[in-house]
Amino acid sequence: MLQTIAWTGHCVRLLDQTRLPLETVHVDIADEKQMWDAIRRLVVRGAPAIGVAAMFGAYLGVKDFRRPDSDLYAFYDHLNKVIDYLATARPTAVNLFWALDRIRRVAREAGRDTAAARPQDAIEVIKQRILSEARLALEEDRAACRSIGEHGLSLLAGIARTPIEILTHCNAGGLATVQYGTALSPIYVGFERGMKFHVWADETRPLLQGSRITAFELHANGIPVTVICDNMAATVMAQGKVDAVIVGADRIAANGDVANKIGTLGVAVLARHFGVPFYVAAPTSTIDPATPDGSHIPIEQRDTAEVSNGMGRQTCPPDVAIYNPAFDVTPAELVTAIITEKGVLVRPYGPALAGVKA
Amino acid sequence: MLQTIAWTGHCVRLLDQTRLPLETVHVDIADEKQMWDAIRRLVVRGAPAIGVAAMFGAYLGVKDFRRPDSDLYAFYDHLNKVIDYLATARPTAVNLFWALDRIRRVAREAGRDTAAARPQDAIEVIKQRILSEARLALEEDRAACRSIGEHGLSLLAGIARTPIEILTHCNAGGLATVQYGTALSPIYVGFERGMKFHVWADETRPLLQGSRITAFELHANGIPVTVICDNMAATVMAQGKVDAVIVGADRIAANGDVANKIGTLGVAVLARHFGVPFYVAAPTSTIDPATPDGSHIPIEQRDTAEVSNGMGRQTCPPDVAIYNPAFDVTPAELVTAIITEKGVLVRPYGPALAGVKA
Repeated sequence: MLQTIAWTGHCVRLLDQTRLPLETVHVDIADEKQMWDAIRRLVVRGAPAIGVAAMFGAYLGVKDFRRPDSDLYAFYDHLNKVIDYLATARPTAVNLFWALDRIRRVAREAGRDTAAARPQDAIEVIKQRILSEARLALEEDRAACRSIGEHGLSLLAGIARTPIEILTHCNAGGLATVQYGTALSPIYVGFERGMKFHVWADETRPLLQGSRITAFELHANGIPVTVICDNMAATVMAQGKVDAVIVGADRIAANGDVANKIGTLGVAVLARHFGVPFYVAAPTSTIDPATPDGSHIPIEQRDTAEVSNGMGRQTCPPDVAIYNPAFDVTPAELVTAIITEKGVLVRPYGPALAGVKA
Repeated sequence: MLQTIAWTGHCVRLLDQTRLPLETVHVDIADEKQMWDAIRRLVVRGAPAIGVAAMFGAYLGVKDFRRPDSDLYAFYDHLNKVIDYLATARPTAVNLFWALDRIRRVAREAGRDTAAARPQDAIEVIKQRILSEARLALEEDRAACRSIGEHGLSLLAGIARTPIEILTHCNAGGLATVQYGTALSPIYVGFERGMKFHVWADETRPLLQGSRITAFELHANGIPVTVICDNMAATVMAQGKVDAVIVGADRIAANGDVANKIGTLGVAVLARHFGVPFYVAAPTSTIDPATPDGSHIPIEQRDTAEVSNGMGRQTCPPDVAIYNPAFDVTPAELVTAIITEKGVLVRPYGPALAGVKA
């Protein structure tokens, strides 16, 4: 399986997902500005992967900080600037803010533990603690995704058809996380155990993460996949060819409303209409207790050129208005279950989400 | 307004819609093979326009027929071959078959009227009758679309918001017909009378008739339009920004099931979910009494390269399966009303459709 994010010892190696599926090129990220750019341009994307990448980005942003050793104020000031800057890379996925808060917290704790006893070492200790935390998050993400796969698989166990027919939107696979993915993890875990799947991959306009990335990784891992345009999902469901929809999430509000890639809401409405279960798979880091419901989730608006010139040539007349929200919000009532690393959540989502987040 | 189809006196001039929106190029079609190719490659597209184009194609196919004047058998044999050939250009839009049947009928009538009295002139008379019929169909289509606009406008009269917000899928505008269009005709007719509209144009993957053609023609005619990816329609409806959906049709079965561009079914399901009226606009030539319901409508499967290499570069991994149906079927129960040139039809559609077709 391709490595989404790796720490080389001195920089972060990212698979450049803007080049998929025809080229598998890695880029080495050496400072926080390069990381910000990589997140903004979707070189690395997927809420869990963005979170981990940002944590390494925070380390890259402070690792060369040189001041009189005891000037902790200046160090924290610099770290906070780096964190605030990285937090502006993308607005919707809460994992980014969760991950950066985690860095802020461990930096504070490390400073508190060290500064009094060994003030001359404090800054170096904090730096190392930040790097350790990023590396820990990377391993935790792998484990969380694996666990999501196990829990998700329990939901698919009752499906009699072989292969099991899953429809997914965008990419919430291994390339959106460190490994396994969220939405695709139940498929990978089941496949390891000899279960048979066929996946319908919505191509996911405008940036085609479904055809470029989901189809790429499933195919590379030996799982049969058929690419469809987003507007074909209704036909496939109407033909009874979908046993379950599984998608990822960029933010889950406290009431269970789910922000995910634009088009997810439409798939959820179709699933309800055609009687197909609609599952959201995400680590608990995607749950945002501070967001009461979907109406409070900021939706990133991206460059209209993604729509008008998305795939190599201009396909809109000049001067025509274009609307390009990168995410939409699926109301909790359309979500059959939320699959987390801590278990499967069902309605009412409010207490269930609060429970796993506690 | 750009001319979709025109008869120059010796050939058919088509606007090459594969080149829109950046180039407005016309091509002259001189024989039935060129017409078949133009229909297949979507140089001319839209069910009503295809019908009219095929009628001219039939004329082009027989106009140079040279045999002893009285050999009517040979002429009819040739005409039938031309008609059967043109009918293979595309399978779903019934207007094509309806139009060619119309040519067959007038040719038979003209032959019957002429052959006994002036056998030496019969073939020339039939040829001229075919050309006249094609030219008549062209004018009839213009008039039918205008009438669809008047009837459709009556459905929009009760909308209080200004501008009235219409969402459409694919292109059922002037460029899908001779003029005015079907789905867009109420907008053009209302606009002439000073009403204000704003149109959400689904880009309509894979071939982007929405962004390339609908946005092009609305913009050229001064009507505000915003292009969205197909998967954004749900968000726009969820935000309450759509007063009505209007789409065209390629075939309407006897029970009111509607075949139209792939993605229409999904829009219809969304409209139902969000409480938005879903209107289908089509001339009565699109009604097919011989097709009892949608399950009997043949659905054209098109080249998978339209999906994988749709817009200038390859966006799917090699060797990945792709499904590319060009149409889907919206069941009658999701259709709020069918707008024809003879009036607005409501449920139960069976008798209503039979009534206007009689």
